Amino acid sequence: MNERQPLLDRVPLPQDLRKLSREELPQLADELREEIVRTVSETGGHFSSNLGSVELTIALHYLFETPSDLLVWDVGHQTYPHKILTGRRDRMKTMRQYGGLSGFCLRGESEYDVVAAGHASTSISAALGLAIARDLRLEKHHVVAIIGDGSMTAGMAFEAMNQAGHLGTRLIVVLNDNSMSISPSVGALTKYLEALMAGRHYAKLKDDIKHVLHKIPGIGDPMLGVAKGLEEGVRQMFTPGTLFEELGFRYVGPVNGHSVPALLEALEAARGIDGPVLVHAITKKGKGYKYAEDEPVEYHGPSPFDPVAGIQKGKSASAPSYTSVFGKTIVRLAERDPRIVAITASMPDGTGLNAFSERFPERFLNTGIAEQHSVTLAAGLALGGSKPVVAIYSTFLQRGFDQIFHDVCLMDVPVVFALDRGGIAGNDGWTHHGLFDFAYFRIFPNTIIMAPKDENEMQHMLATALEQTHPTALRYPRGNGVGVPMDAELRQLPVGRAEVLRRGRHGSVWAIGSTVYPTLEAAERLARDGVELTVVNARFVKPLDRELLRSEVERLGDGARIVTVEEHVVAGGFGSAMMEAIADMELANVQVLPIGVPDQFVPHGSQDLLRKKLGLDADSLSFRLRRFFTPAREAEAGSATPAPRVAGASRPAAG
Amino acid sequence: MNERQPLLDRVPLPQDLRKLSREELPQLADELREEIVRTVSETGGHFSSNLGSVELTIALHYLFETPSDLLVWDVGHQTYPHKILTGRRDRMKTMRQYGGLSGFCLRGESEYDVVAAGHASTSISAALGLAIARDLRLEKHHVVAIIGDGSMTAGMAFEAMNQAGHLGTRLIVVLNDNSMSISPSVGALTKYLEALMAGRHYAKLKDDIKHVLHKIPGIGDPMLGVAKGLEEGVRQMFTPGTLFEELGFRYVGPVNGHSVPALLEALEAARGIDGPVLVHAITKKGKGYKYAEDEPVEYHGPSPFDPVAGIQKGKSASAPSYTSVFGKTIVRLAERDPRIVAITASMPDGTGLNAFSERFPERFLNTGIAEQHSVTLAAGLALGGSKPVVAIYSTFLQRGFDQIFHDVCLMDVPVVFALDRGGIAGNDGWTHHGLFDFAYFRIFPNTIIMAPKDENEMQHMLATALEQTHPTALRYPRGNGVGVPMDAELRQLPVGRAEVLRRGRHGSVWAIGSTVYPTLEAAERLARDGVELTVVNARFVKPLDRELLRSEVERLGDGARIVTVEEHVVAGGFGSAMMEAIADMELANVQVLPIGVPDQFVPHGSQDLLRKKLGLDADSLSFRLRRFFTPAREAEAGSATPAPRVAGASRPAAG
Repeated sequence: MNERQPLLDRVPLPQDLRKLSREELPQLADELREEIVRTVSETGGHFSSNLGSVELTIALHYLFETPSDLLVWDVGHQTYPHKILTGRRDRMKTMRQYGGLSGFCLRGESEYDVVAAGHASTSISAALGLAIARDLRLEKHHVVAIIGDGSMTAGMAFEAMNQAGHLGTRLIVVLNDNSMSISPSVGALTKYLEALMAGRHYAKLKDDIKHVLHKIPGIGDPMLGVAKGLEEGVRQMFTPGTLFEELGFRYVGPVNGHSVPALLEALEAARGIDGPVLVHAITKKGKGYKYAEDEPVEYHGPSPFDPVAGIQKGKSASAPSYTSVFGKTIVRLAERDPRIVAITASMPDGTGLNAFSERFPERFLNTGIAEQHSVTLAAGLALGGSKPVVAIYSTFLQRGFDQIFHDVCLMDVPVVFALDRGGIAGNDGWTHHGLFDFAYFRIFPNTIIMAPKDENEMQHMLATALEQTHPTALRYPRGNGVGVPMDAELRQLPVGRAEVLRRGRHGSVWAIGSTVYPTLEAAERLARDGVELTVVNARFVKPLDRELLRSEVERLGDGARIVTVEEHVVAGGFGSAMMEAIADMELANVQVLPIGVPDQFVPHGSQDLLRKKLGLDADSLSFRLRRFFTPAREAEAGSATPAPRVAGASRPAAG
Repeated sequence: MNERQPLLDRVPLPQDLRKLSREELPQLADELREEIVRTVSETGGHFSSNLGSVELTIALHYLFETPSDLLVWDVGHQTYPHKILTGRRDRMKTMRQYGGLSGFCLRGESEYDVVAAGHASTSISAALGLAIARDLRLEKHHVVAIIGDGSMTAGMAFEAMNQAGHLGTRLIVVLNDNSMSISPSVGALTKYLEALMAGRHYAKLKDDIKHVLHKIPGIGDPMLGVAKGLEEGVRQMFTPGTLFEELGFRYVGPVNGHSVPALLEALEAARGIDGPVLVHAITKKGKGYKYAEDEPVEYHGPSPFDPVAGIQKGKSASAPSYTSVFGKTIVRLAERDPRIVAITASMPDGTGLNAFSERFPERFLNTGIAEQHSVTLAAGLALGGSKPVVAIYSTFLQRGFDQIFHDVCLMDVPVVFALDRGGIAGNDGWTHHGLFDFAYFRIFPNTIIMAPKDENEMQHMLATALEQTHPTALRYPRGNGVGVPMDAELRQLPVGRAEVLRRGRHGSVWAIGSTVYPTLEAAERLARDGVELTVVNARFVKPLDRELLRSEVERLGDGARIVTVEEHVVAGGFGSAMMEAIADMELANVQVLPIGVPDQFVPHGSQDLLRKKLGLDADSLSFRLRRFFTPAREAEAGSATPAPRVAGASRPAAG
């Protein structure tokens, strides 16, 4: 599209970028934008936010001596331009694939990725830490945090601003303000930023001053002429930023975040300030790609698409996603029960609550990126007689861990937690997998935790959860359901009761959630070789079906072999809960094999591939069950060989 | 002290209080204050903050129709006046004792305690939930959150304000501003509140306007006279509160929080506003009791003292507290290593960091009540080459759970977490026990977790933690050490290696932290009856000493019996980790008895009493070990009786 030699070819690294003239930078921005459209339309990935950060990224690397100066990107899904400009252009096509580039910043991937992220709102804290460490070492480099307006609504960003403003540490915060996080931002701060952007803050101030002058006795109307003269002076002093200035930050802006010259000017001003400074850059999500500008939510993280035609709608998957089943079911339930209220932390689309929000706007609460507040808000609603459902991705709800303890479990209030993205999340990688939720819920008294084997069971579980008088977590995976028929009527599942899917005399395998069908398939393969296993769909991590567990152990007799299977870390998970129950019931001589995710972080890649790598697919499970249960069958056949100790059988190599 | 009939005798409940005339309320305040001095000097408990909230409590119950109108107290340690005025006066002497009144608000204790608390900064979220539920039910009552300025620095308070201001829900937030949380508050917000209080915000504004007028060409000096006239008008409009107004709240104040008439006026104004409103009340911690006014930190939560003479210093305990050993050791280590930085979230005194803060002010960071930010700040410091130690009580660090995962463990940065108040915290009760920390750390890869058996081991552990290249948690109890001699030299303990304290052929008991000595004592009692047990001081929850575990199991042979003992919930704790290791090593036919805190919340009471109730003292442990190990000895003696299944032996009744 460009007949001149592409500038992008001449700037493999920031040091090369800094050799360009300022006049060349807008052209570089155009090329970078085209490159992103080309790449992401092929690979899928985060899109709109990367189109929005093109000029800002160029300006930052142009003006600051990266990597000596440190850029700390909040979340990191807006760093494709940063990746292209820091030596990773040729690997962009591996984005989010197993072994390829991460879709976020990742320490170790590049020396330019200073702080890894994936969750929102951590950048100012990390940058402040880096800045204080710099000062203690008497070093002089700059530290720049780049944070979106959505991330700014989270409490921890406020905590960091509060301390940075107090300490007066030299630190630059760039507020990349597109009035959007993933969905349109909400909250008073957002309104405030909009007012700043539009100059309404200044206008209001002007009106206020006019009003004051008007009220002064003996002056009144004649003085109003002064107001006009006041304009310029007021604009210089007050424009505008008072909220940030109250917190001890100098405010620069608002500045057009798609004008490289304007950004350079603002950042140069900020660079010269010996203290905390906030640069307010106004950007547009999806900038320069019309479809994405018009529908930033849809283009937030698309699958591969035709760059000319845009995303083609209507290609429906074979089975509905768990997210959509959740979204439909909560609407059905809310139609019957006016007490149901749904809460999302800035993810109405991702959590499937869009339909609910349209159908019941007054019962829909979007808190911003505010998981802590969301949980306690739900506790308050429950105490007030509502039936709150908090829909937050499993990994993001970690932010509300203490509130789950302090405001929900201690008071034992019936809040329902809908944990989407439980288990392996896939291409978003290690910050996004939901691999700790069974553990972080079950350690607290009063909790009920369930996970469905398929989308039909899931709808019944949601109906069941809403009838409980205790805190209840419903955990389900990312992606499509199994494709089972959906029952027309919702029904209540008995709490704490598991479901026996097949019976066999050699052992008992207890699976939960997404691992139930692969386990069943593995057991059926073993049956062909004469190893007959009972397969239990556990349904509940808490309360466990202790009766069934006891009867299985007693049925299997001395040396009973029990396997647990879960898409969750072994440490503290469902398998641990089962072992605790066995110990608590003092069931003697039971050999347990807990299968789950080992004690290491799981990288990005497709869900299927990662499950295979982790040994959680039917093939791997067949192999592992066969090794574990073969001695049982041999003992039955008269062999007296003791159980072999299969080193490492429960520890597949992950990653 | 008062010759008139005490008003306090006439107002057992708020409905009686509301029958008093407004003129009688100051006298009631005096009586209430005397009652608090009398009570707390006898029982110990929170003191300064309760003296500070006397007039506010009276005004709130006088003006609002409690319990129909809802008061939500943040934290709740300032609610002694509230408890006295809501029917609990006669039980104040049972405060914080087992079976007595809680030192915080507690649902179930009184219908006037709407929301339970203990951790800071949850009140606005909970109150907003109650207010939204009220609106959905078309009810009309008022909801009032009462929050301190320290609590206001926490991110979740900001998250709640951000949503409340956006929604415009009718809600009153009373900011009880004493420039103190437990220690003097810090942060930009605090500076801002001080400026509001002193009228400096207003003065600055006035100066700014003068400056503007001065700059207008052709007007200049003559116009400055106008500035004087501006004063009143400006004061009315702007005074002051802009930060809260930017967040969508109406601002009323500042008001003298020790003047009942002033408070009534402000609260009446607030009650009439159909939207979110913040009432800024200026109070003084320790108000009316000179010693406490002078030393609010010392009088924050004193032990019983002489009400006339005040707290008598210099009575040192027989053994140093773990907190003080931590405080001394970190100073020693920091003297040798300039990279060490200490972080506290508003608790320099409670965590023992006061000496450090005086010796190394530039390496001491007090973040405010901001646990989330503290953790990520530490990650940034570690990435910048510092060696951060984050000292936060075990239960409060739950607020930083996601940051431990996302910013510390994922990047595997060497942050040291000093978790004071691990285990049973005592009289502060259920919100303050640190019973979940082994679990919430060990589920994350890369962590090292240790707990010392005594204060001498603790100092070596801190030295060891600071040499690790991974995230490391050091967990120790509230209260005094065991009284062992302290080694003069600090040394490195081998990571992942346990310590064998005694050896015996009948079984192996693995204890950790505070439970090691009681376990040893129990084992010695059993030895007198011929049951010989090995006692292991585990030292590390992670990595476990798998070698020793394997050799113990092999030594004990088929049917080996292993007991684990911890002051932590059984779910996901040290015992679970041991069972996971046994399963992972495929050690066959091992019977494990995990002793710990059962799956229920633990109320308040003395540490000793609660440990006894939970079966964690030497007496209870002797009993439980005897029951568990007697079969082993009988088997050795030739008896063929199988191990009896002792129902409930691992589940003592708690509370």
